[in-house]
Amino acid sequence: MTIFDQTDLQELDKIKRLNLVNSCTGFKSANLIATVSPEGIPNLAVFSSVTHLGSNPAMLGFILRPTTVPRHTYSNLKTCPYFTVNHISSSIIDKAHQTSANYEAGISEFDAVGLTPHFIENCEVPFVAESKVQLLCKYLNEYPIHENDTIHIIAKIEKIIVAEESFLTNDMWLNLEKADSVAINGLDAYAQPKILDRFSYARVGKDLSSLDF
Amino acid sequence: MTIFDQTDLQELDKIKRLNLVNSCTGFKSANLIATVSPEGIPNLAVFSSVTHLGSNPAMLGFILRPTTVPRHTYSNLKTCPYFTVNHISSSIIDKAHQTSANYEAGISEFDAVGLTPHFIENCEVPFVAESKVQLLCKYLNEYPIHENDTIHIIAKIEKIIVAEESFLTNDMWLNLEKADSVAINGLDAYAQPKILDRFSYARVGKDLSSLDF
Repeated sequence: MTIFDQTDLQELDKIKRLNLVNSCTGFKSANLIATVSPEGIPNLAVFSSVTHLGSNPAMLGFILRPTTVPRHTYSNLKTCPYFTVNHISSSIIDKAHQTSANYEAGISEFDAVGLTPHFIENCEVPFVAESKVQLLCKYLNEYPIHENDTIHIIAKIEKIIVAEESFLTNDMWLNLEKADSVAINGLDAYAQPKILDRFSYARVGKDLSSLDF
Repeated sequence: MTIFDQTDLQELDKIKRLNLVNSCTGFKSANLIATVSPEGIPNLAVFSSVTHLGSNPAMLGFILRPTTVPRHTYSNLKTCPYFTVNHISSSIIDKAHQTSANYEAGISEFDAVGLTPHFIENCEVPFVAESKVQLLCKYLNEYPIHENDTIHIIAKIEKIIVAEESFLTNDMWLNLEKADSVAINGLDAYAQPKILDRFSYARVGKDLSSLDF
């Protein structure tokens, strides 16, 4: 057994602390978020913090780092509130990860890493054509987290696009293994999950599950 | 291809909308959060929203549902700010999921589902003995999300306990496949991830990755 207390964490060098703390909360969602600049240049970046917030209305949140260095995703949202969330599938993990390098604002990561922007009618922000699950979202609000100067972005899910109807069961559960969606372990590792089991709602007597939000 | 727009989502029945929207953000972390009541009774509940917030200081966040029905995790944090986050491993997914049923406040989910509380010195809140990665956390703050009346809880990570040293690489990356940690797909499905690849920091020239928070 290995135990790290607060002093141990403080005394780790930066890279080791980043690796350990980024891994310790469990597997993370693996998404590419696309935004568009006022000049119409798309930005694409890996996010591992996209989290379900509610289903009615459909909402999600994600965490942005401090704005002390250029953050194109954040600045783009200030002029165009629409963005897309695109699941990373196993065949594009290397290209997806490369988007996290600091490209200049004038460069589209789609071009830089070799992913395909896909535009739909009446929408100026592109989807990632290679992604099997794509969401169109609209920025609603942001909550600054004062404890460490990160920002929690809150958004409405306006459209859900699923590449194959066969990924969905009759009760509209989306099988992410069939969609080839991956998960992130830490900062830089990608994992492919296999479904173990699906349970019915947990109940005591006739109560509905406490998970139903 | 199947597309759901806002009207489609509105018109789905509740269970279908819950299943679809809870799956569409990707795989989620799978943790059991333990708290303790003023009477000393532990509460244990599945959370799929635990998210990395920062590594220095080590912090995480998670989402709580509205407080319109009893939420023992939330009320317990008001009297004892310490809680534990315990990774769900593949051998306990059925027991872990059953904690999401609505047990009475006086009942410990540890007893009800058959998981083992493990206490350490100077700490009144138990860990889940069956979990291979355990965190001791302290409540710092909460941010009400006004858009849907959920609550974002912010906490400091005070201790990280890893069952086997072999789960850690030399640079302190914690291999969650070796730790047998699972991921959640939607409301009620559990998946076992296999590591595909681990990349170095993505760089353009000498820039550090934009993922390093």
